[in-house]
Amino acid sequence: MTNRSVRIRVPGTSANCGPGFDAIGLACTVYNDLELTLLKEPELSITIEGEGAQNIPCDNRNIVWRSVQYLLRKAKLDKEYPGAIIHMENNVPLSRGLGSSATAIVAGLKAANVLIGNRFNRRELLQFATDIEGHPDNVAPAIFGGFTISTVTRGNVECFTFMPKFRMKLVVAVPDFPLSTRKARAVLPEKVPMKDAVNNIGRAAMLVAALCKGNDKFLRNVFEDALHQPYRAELIPGMYDVFQAARKAGALGANLSGAGPCLIAYTLEKRECEEAVGEAMKKAFQQHGVASKILIMDLDNRGAHIVNENKE
Amino acid sequence: MTNRSVRIRVPGTSANCGPGFDAIGLACTVYNDLELTLLKEPELSITIEGEGAQNIPCDNRNIVWRSVQYLLRKAKLDKEYPGAIIHMENNVPLSRGLGSSATAIVAGLKAANVLIGNRFNRRELLQFATDIEGHPDNVAPAIFGGFTISTVTRGNVECFTFMPKFRMKLVVAVPDFPLSTRKARAVLPEKVPMKDAVNNIGRAAMLVAALCKGNDKFLRNVFEDALHQPYRAELIPGMYDVFQAARKAGALGANLSGAGPCLIAYTLEKRECEEAVGEAMKKAFQQHGVASKILIMDLDNRGAHIVNENKE
Repeated sequence: MTNRSVRIRVPGTSANCGPGFDAIGLACTVYNDLELTLLKEPELSITIEGEGAQNIPCDNRNIVWRSVQYLLRKAKLDKEYPGAIIHMENNVPLSRGLGSSATAIVAGLKAANVLIGNRFNRRELLQFATDIEGHPDNVAPAIFGGFTISTVTRGNVECFTFMPKFRMKLVVAVPDFPLSTRKARAVLPEKVPMKDAVNNIGRAAMLVAALCKGNDKFLRNVFEDALHQPYRAELIPGMYDVFQAARKAGALGANLSGAGPCLIAYTLEKRECEEAVGEAMKKAFQQHGVASKILIMDLDNRGAHIVNENKE
Repeated sequence: MTNRSVRIRVPGTSANCGPGFDAIGLACTVYNDLELTLLKEPELSITIEGEGAQNIPCDNRNIVWRSVQYLLRKAKLDKEYPGAIIHMENNVPLSRGLGSSATAIVAGLKAANVLIGNRFNRRELLQFATDIEGHPDNVAPAIFGGFTISTVTRGNVECFTFMPKFRMKLVVAVPDFPLSTRKARAVLPEKVPMKDAVNNIGRAAMLVAALCKGNDKFLRNVFEDALHQPYRAELIPGMYDVFQAARKAGALGANLSGAGPCLIAYTLEKRECEEAVGEAMKKAFQQHGVASKILIMDLDNRGAHIVNENKE
């Protein structure tokens, strides 16, 4: 009997979106693929192409495999499938703030779920993924696509997903140094001024309203953040200059992508300024001695999905 | 020559809407009316009917008159009109968290603006009103109606206004004691836990998305607040019990209206549960020894407007 396998594609994601610290996220059109075969024998084969091929562990510590096991345990099928063949083709840069670990978690959960007959729905996968990752910021858009707003209420995750009413381009500057989320979290204070919280609440709410209603003139000031970027600026040379350069070149706004170090700018597709914005960001980074690669992307509107399934 | 006069109607408002502390507000169908006549003589006559008739000063300290003067100064017409006849008919309860002071400011500005030929637009009136009140939470919905999201960026106010996609009823329990905003502000800390800020950002964003997109099932947990209600609970006996009673009776959620002491619950019109919610809130307050009056209202969708204008 041939083992069943599935190939899953999961988008990279950008968390926070400026004021939406730990709450708002989006999925973009850069993808990691996972091909998974579950084995009835305790064998594990993990191969990786592309981003992170040198850095990602290919043993029991592998996050895809741990997520596969997590789902199998939830379905009480972990004894039945003690092994797997995992092949990853990664395009999402590692440790740059584009949710590469979230793609691995979501890919593992989704692929295993498909192979056991879709026992869990997407909301359940979101809960599992959040439990594994510790927060829903990246796993939510990786699962659902589009923009996502996540809340956690007494441990229960909820996620609202939507596409904005106008077409946007996402311009991401990927600097040539990694930044661990742990390090980027460590610089944040435990307490913040109330006025900074108010700043972000208003902007996050206005960002969402403007996207939902298609009113881009209200996006001018909404990407400003007071809760995490000011503390993380020291870790990313030239951050605010890159934001300013993006805006001068026509972007609606720009912010740190997740915990960084990627910086993301938003443009209106109709303005056709994404190339200019990318160049301006690259140049501004250069002036601070930082080399960077520019990715120009769209919003992904599907989230994690099956590319193909071998049912033999 | 007969003096020109105008009658302006301004809605009461509820600020914060739970997680939207100092950012989100709404206008409701309870109104204060102002009849204003500008005088070329330095005479001032102020008369008040209804709410606050005993408490509102009728001299130079009167906030309507001060707002009229503010607008006249902005138009450099304060010398021309050194006096006024002001008559107020108030239905908005005073010092209860329904924006009575905002109605006075907005009424004064709007009435004076009409009488000098609408020299300023609504956005300018919002800026003036915010400068007078110190924050836009109540003046924004009083001017625009509906739900409002306000941000202040380097002193400049912006306001996004929208009506939700479903019809709601607002149930307000007005307890029989006043609470000064100053006192309610004094109990708030200057710094708050980051996790509480994140709690409110996600819920405020989800509240706005659910209202804009008409998805009421996402409203279940969004009215919870971590930034101001926990601190203000001590000032309002039984607050959380009233919230719970409202929800049990069918409300989507409930929260402190502005700085309180009014409590506001939200219901879907199609559920027809607003009467039951009101009774449940009143009863829960009673169990804590608090007498209250119940107001059942709709969202106001006009904001401050002219009732009639005497151009003779």
